[in-house]
Amino acid sequence: MMTKTLKVAMLGFGNAGQAFVKLLLDKHDEIVDKYKYDIKVVAISTKSRGSMVNEKGIDLRLALSDMEELNHFRKNREDYSSFNSMEIAKTVDYNVIIELTPLEIFTGQPAIDHIKTAFNRSKHAITANKGPIAWAYEELKDLAKKQDSLFYYETTVMDGTPIFNLVEETLEFCKITEVNGILNSTTNYVLEEIAKGKEYDDVIVEGKKRGFIEANPAMDIEGWDAAAKTAVLLNILMGANITPADIDRKGIEDITNKQIEEAANKGNVIKLICHGSIKDGKIIGTVQPKEIGKDSIYSNIKGTSSVVTISTDLMGDISIVEHEPEIEQTAYGVFGDILRVIKSIGLV
Amino acid sequence: MMTKTLKVAMLGFGNAGQAFVKLLLDKHDEIVDKYKYDIKVVAISTKSRGSMVNEKGIDLRLALSDMEELNHFRKNREDYSSFNSMEIAKTVDYNVIIELTPLEIFTGQPAIDHIKTAFNRSKHAITANKGPIAWAYEELKDLAKKQDSLFYYETTVMDGTPIFNLVEETLEFCKITEVNGILNSTTNYVLEEIAKGKEYDDVIVEGKKRGFIEANPAMDIEGWDAAAKTAVLLNILMGANITPADIDRKGIEDITNKQIEEAANKGNVIKLICHGSIKDGKIIGTVQPKEIGKDSIYSNIKGTSSVVTISTDLMGDISIVEHEPEIEQTAYGVFGDILRVIKSIGLV
Repeated sequence: MMTKTLKVAMLGFGNAGQAFVKLLLDKHDEIVDKYKYDIKVVAISTKSRGSMVNEKGIDLRLALSDMEELNHFRKNREDYSSFNSMEIAKTVDYNVIIELTPLEIFTGQPAIDHIKTAFNRSKHAITANKGPIAWAYEELKDLAKKQDSLFYYETTVMDGTPIFNLVEETLEFCKITEVNGILNSTTNYVLEEIAKGKEYDDVIVEGKKRGFIEANPAMDIEGWDAAAKTAVLLNILMGANITPADIDRKGIEDITNKQIEEAANKGNVIKLICHGSIKDGKIIGTVQPKEIGKDSIYSNIKGTSSVVTISTDLMGDISIVEHEPEIEQTAYGVFGDILRVIKSIGLV
Repeated sequence: MMTKTLKVAMLGFGNAGQAFVKLLLDKHDEIVDKYKYDIKVVAISTKSRGSMVNEKGIDLRLALSDMEELNHFRKNREDYSSFNSMEIAKTVDYNVIIELTPLEIFTGQPAIDHIKTAFNRSKHAITANKGPIAWAYEELKDLAKKQDSLFYYETTVMDGTPIFNLVEETLEFCKITEVNGILNSTTNYVLEEIAKGKEYDDVIVEGKKRGFIEANPAMDIEGWDAAAKTAVLLNILMGANITPADIDRKGIEDITNKQIEEAANKGNVIKLICHGSIKDGKIIGTVQPKEIGKDSIYSNIKGTSSVVTISTDLMGDISIVEHEPEIEQTAYGVFGDILRVIKSIGLV
């Protein structure tokens, strides 16, 4: 059997993209062995650190070492390109585009347009960026179908933890009636620190210093990140066709030390809970701080760990917990989607 | 596309078998629609309540109503048969055999022989009985491969919760380095009741009355059931090629009220923990009561709920929790395996 080539264009080359490339290098020979596919990265774009394009395949070791040594691609390389992400999406000859650009939480752009461009060229797309799924899932899904394109997005919630694949591949004929989860680590961290007796402002300052909290934590604290994840879960698992703006959202900004203390006196904790269910035939999504009893596994989802529980008609309730993920788990999510592309193409 | 027929022989027709048949009746038309397969049950055996054989398909509604009304198959039915399970395995014309006979925990027999018989006839097999996987997985797997037979066993641990399918279908290239779990509800119940201040003997008597504890609870209390499940997990997920006898097993029979109380004073609980890992290149399995810290989700796994955590090289640690399953979840496990057979045959 001849080895075929799968050409991949990567939009974005931050920590997750770099970890993905390392994993690809590590598993390259095994993939050739098992699937007879040689995966070549033919383009990588960044916003301000240059791009690389080489339709015969970029030397990924050099791409990694450039970033490590210079924090940008070396400008005198033959493969160096000034193409931006949209130019790559539009013009490079690839089979699959991987959307890894930073999330624009209120629009999902330009990631949505990158993926549309790929589909309109009948290319396949993988997104680790949840924006497109939160804001335009139905439209993208329909376009992919029309163009015979594959569209995978496992990494958009809980990194590579196979929540969407689990449902699609292993829970067939099950109807999902409810979804719950804890999916935002910043609020998890802040609530835990306050429960230790610290003041909100001190927790934010210390969290930023320690790298647990972003420079502008408003999107996390106000529940927008959790709302985007809830929209993704409900769009994919329940066909909700909603956006983050449709989620009934309340952040943790108004939670007082006193409320946390009162919960703690009962052995309970306050957590920011993502929820979706069917009410009067309509799928509704909420993000709200809730007091969680000490008997629930939700009380023990701490720090960067996360949980999703799906309630089904045939298989009851199942929870999946991801424990303290690292960037390698994000990389694995993208990697797993690439394998699905190879397997699906193989079947065509 | 023509509708094909999948002929199924069921060995055993207890609660799980009956729930499976109900699910099959319920989803029959959807399966024909989606996969163009008409699933017909052509044989059902029981140990002492008669059997039924009809190569054109048993009337499953009558089979269910006989059991409900008479607790055995009506002897004057045309389909009534005195075949035992092995005679059915050997002689009936089926495509797939479903092994649902009661577990013989120290041998895995006669379930192993049923499955071997099916494979030797180049038939496919599904087992919900964990005996064959605990005692003879490698042998059966090799025989299935040699005979081009399919072999599925999702139901053997955690009912239909897709633990094996999860790993096989969605965690490709991941190497599992460690497995942990709480998988025995009797010991879970007993330890919880003792923690409430009750005496061991009283808990057993009351548990039997309430249906939580079997007539002879020794297999649960001494950890044999958990050891069988551990062997299944390690054989399938880690290729351990071990049996329940190889598991370093300690039950809860020596746990004292005082130990439980001392743990409770720290907010902790004692749980019977299944564990497998690699030590000096060899896979070892243990079943042991352990004190679990109140910060672990394992402290929240109560009653009939269960958990499995897999540690992987590429995807870190993932836990799956099944919440308070009913018999319908066992039925779904078998149903899911039947769907896999149809999909796999479709590909051949």
